[in-house]
Amino acid sequence: MIKMNPHYAKLNASYLFSTIAQKIEAFQAAHPDTDLIRLGIGDVTHGLAKPCVDAMKQAADEMGSDTGFRGYGPEQGYEFLRAAIAEHDFRSRGVEMSADEVFVSDGAKCDSGNFLDVLAADIQVGVPDPVYPVYVDTNVMSGRTGTYSDGRYEGLAYLEGTRENGFVPPPPSYHLDLIYLCFPNNPTGATATREQLSAWVAYAREHEALILFDAAYERFIRSPDVPHSIYEIDGARSCAVEIRSFSKTAGFTGTRCAFTVVPKEIEVSDGNGSVRSLHSLWNRRQSTKFNGVSYPIQRSAEAVYSPEGTHAVDSRIQYYMENASIIRERMERAGYAVTGGLDSPYIWVETGTDSWSFFDRLLNEAGVVITPGVGFGRMGEGFIRISAFNHREKVEEAMERIVRAL
Amino acid sequence: MIKMNPHYAKLNASYLFSTIAQKIEAFQAAHPDTDLIRLGIGDVTHGLAKPCVDAMKQAADEMGSDTGFRGYGPEQGYEFLRAAIAEHDFRSRGVEMSADEVFVSDGAKCDSGNFLDVLAADIQVGVPDPVYPVYVDTNVMSGRTGTYSDGRYEGLAYLEGTRENGFVPPPPSYHLDLIYLCFPNNPTGATATREQLSAWVAYAREHEALILFDAAYERFIRSPDVPHSIYEIDGARSCAVEIRSFSKTAGFTGTRCAFTVVPKEIEVSDGNGSVRSLHSLWNRRQSTKFNGVSYPIQRSAEAVYSPEGTHAVDSRIQYYMENASIIRERMERAGYAVTGGLDSPYIWVETGTDSWSFFDRLLNEAGVVITPGVGFGRMGEGFIRISAFNHREKVEEAMERIVRAL
Repeated sequence: MIKMNPHYAKLNASYLFSTIAQKIEAFQAAHPDTDLIRLGIGDVTHGLAKPCVDAMKQAADEMGSDTGFRGYGPEQGYEFLRAAIAEHDFRSRGVEMSADEVFVSDGAKCDSGNFLDVLAADIQVGVPDPVYPVYVDTNVMSGRTGTYSDGRYEGLAYLEGTRENGFVPPPPSYHLDLIYLCFPNNPTGATATREQLSAWVAYAREHEALILFDAAYERFIRSPDVPHSIYEIDGARSCAVEIRSFSKTAGFTGTRCAFTVVPKEIEVSDGNGSVRSLHSLWNRRQSTKFNGVSYPIQRSAEAVYSPEGTHAVDSRIQYYMENASIIRERMERAGYAVTGGLDSPYIWVETGTDSWSFFDRLLNEAGVVITPGVGFGRMGEGFIRISAFNHREKVEEAMERIVRAL
Repeated sequence: MIKMNPHYAKLNASYLFSTIAQKIEAFQAAHPDTDLIRLGIGDVTHGLAKPCVDAMKQAADEMGSDTGFRGYGPEQGYEFLRAAIAEHDFRSRGVEMSADEVFVSDGAKCDSGNFLDVLAADIQVGVPDPVYPVYVDTNVMSGRTGTYSDGRYEGLAYLEGTRENGFVPPPPSYHLDLIYLCFPNNPTGATATREQLSAWVAYAREHEALILFDAAYERFIRSPDVPHSIYEIDGARSCAVEIRSFSKTAGFTGTRCAFTVVPKEIEVSDGNGSVRSLHSLWNRRQSTKFNGVSYPIQRSAEAVYSPEGTHAVDSRIQYYMENASIIRERMERAGYAVTGGLDSPYIWVETGTDSWSFFDRLLNEAGVVITPGVGFGRMGEGFIRISAFNHREKVEEAMERIVRAL
């Protein structure tokens, strides 16, 4: 009989967000009248900005006419979008970037999983703990780990984020080939300083390692001295791939557009004493296994960079960040130690109990959904993540209910 | 230094369509005044049907309002689209299908490559020859082949399509675990009869193998007795996955929407004496590595099934099939043996010379781009593929020029 990928059998059966969904379903069945407030899954709540909607509609009309119609687009994304990204997200911040180093995709989640395709199976991988579960699961699925026990997979190196290191794990004393970093961090909301990122870049260069830098939340950075891109660090262009998304910044979670930057300097070993360009490997992967993002969606993403689009997106971010302040302030006032919420839409709260008990308590006593920290790894035990993505009145109501319940 | 996936080094450097693009570029630089006609890459030329455009625009408006906004959708696709597909593409033809067996995606190319993720590396894979290059390349990239020589990869079984078998290779006498079938065929335009498909289903059941059935061109079938789906064959639900796309049928090549059907009956071995559901494996893959298709795009695809959408799509298909008749008839009249073009938008022509010489001749002497058959495999040598996707006047002009040049 045809065999399955045996590595799938190693996957820890419960996927964080499905477990949460099941608990919510059970709660709602038992309390059909409670108006549940969701500050759990990091999904945005505000409509797309008008320039993005208008651009999508105009492109839809183009697609409906024989003269304006566009068939297969470039797998890497249209030049108009790649150029806008290179200019506005990088060069305007003094970072060197050419349009053809930007690969447009349908999601940061997809890219972070797919990127493993171009790397060898026998590499030493380091992931933070706590961490976005997709980094871990895609390594498991592709056979880069051993079995699961006690909250961890054999063969993966876990870089521990703690209150003491401000949830920014430093480079380890041992060798890694591939390192996942995410700042502003999901789930902790922590940011890395220029010095902390520089230490990672120096480590990667010394070890000839690759950093997969997830900057999906960069637009939430308020502090002027926090780097938005790993490429603001000298030397990063030879050792780091950066993944970004329109999901959280421009409300594209259901619209689907993201991008991955692969500088042309990055070299990888072919295992036989020669090197190859990582850019050309990723290009080959995308050309063969992907067909580009829908044209109207790329036009919609391009509109994010128009003056009106920028303004509309900034005001949405500002709104969510005011939510974050409210959440942070209320939890602090209630006596909890918190991280995040200053340069990130996530607030990471130390609960004093185990994560799932606290989750159950907030669900059952306050009717509020948050995310249990332990779902992000063993080091997340004893924490919860609260998301600032919701309408103001919901956030205020949720915090009132939480404070009352605690 | 971090190592690349070593299997990428095995890839035959020239990707068919890039080589064609380079030849075209060189020709256009040398002949800037020639109005090149493209009957090469199978990309549609007609605008989206109005109901599809309208649905996309309406959904864009919904996304722009806080009340109508939708964030993350189900990774598997929205119920409204899965249900429409199950009903109109399958149940209306008497084929058993439930909505949750349909996984909506952004492309058939992506799905056909990604599906390998859930299968073991050490399986015996059979591909037709000639064949859509993506089936082969994704097997190479995922380490399921040896090295390339003389137009073939070691370790892959090639199922030869010839004029004698009507380009429908019969099941082999040896064992295979995974078999790619595509009908109506790309590139040959051949279709498989009920008896031929039944033989494959019987083979797959006997060998406990899996058929990956690519039906991207099913809507071009005119002959009433040709099956549109592998599931029209008894027993196929336990051994076949079917991939379909809106690309060619509804002109979605640049809009991006497709789907893969995984019946719940299919079991695969876990390699340790137990079995797993392929449906649940694919669901896990998609949940972890994919985030669903853009909501406005799914609404646009749903509109294909409205009465107006169906009518508009049918009339486009009819138009392309009239092109196919013209191409077929002209080439036959010019004395060439042809296949396809009756239930498929592709016409497969025996050239009497090698494929690339014929390609060069048509490019240089007629200013017409077609696809050299050898690009689809060794058995394609001596053939070319002509695509019927173009405007009528272009097709007529191209055929006049070709007949004149030959």
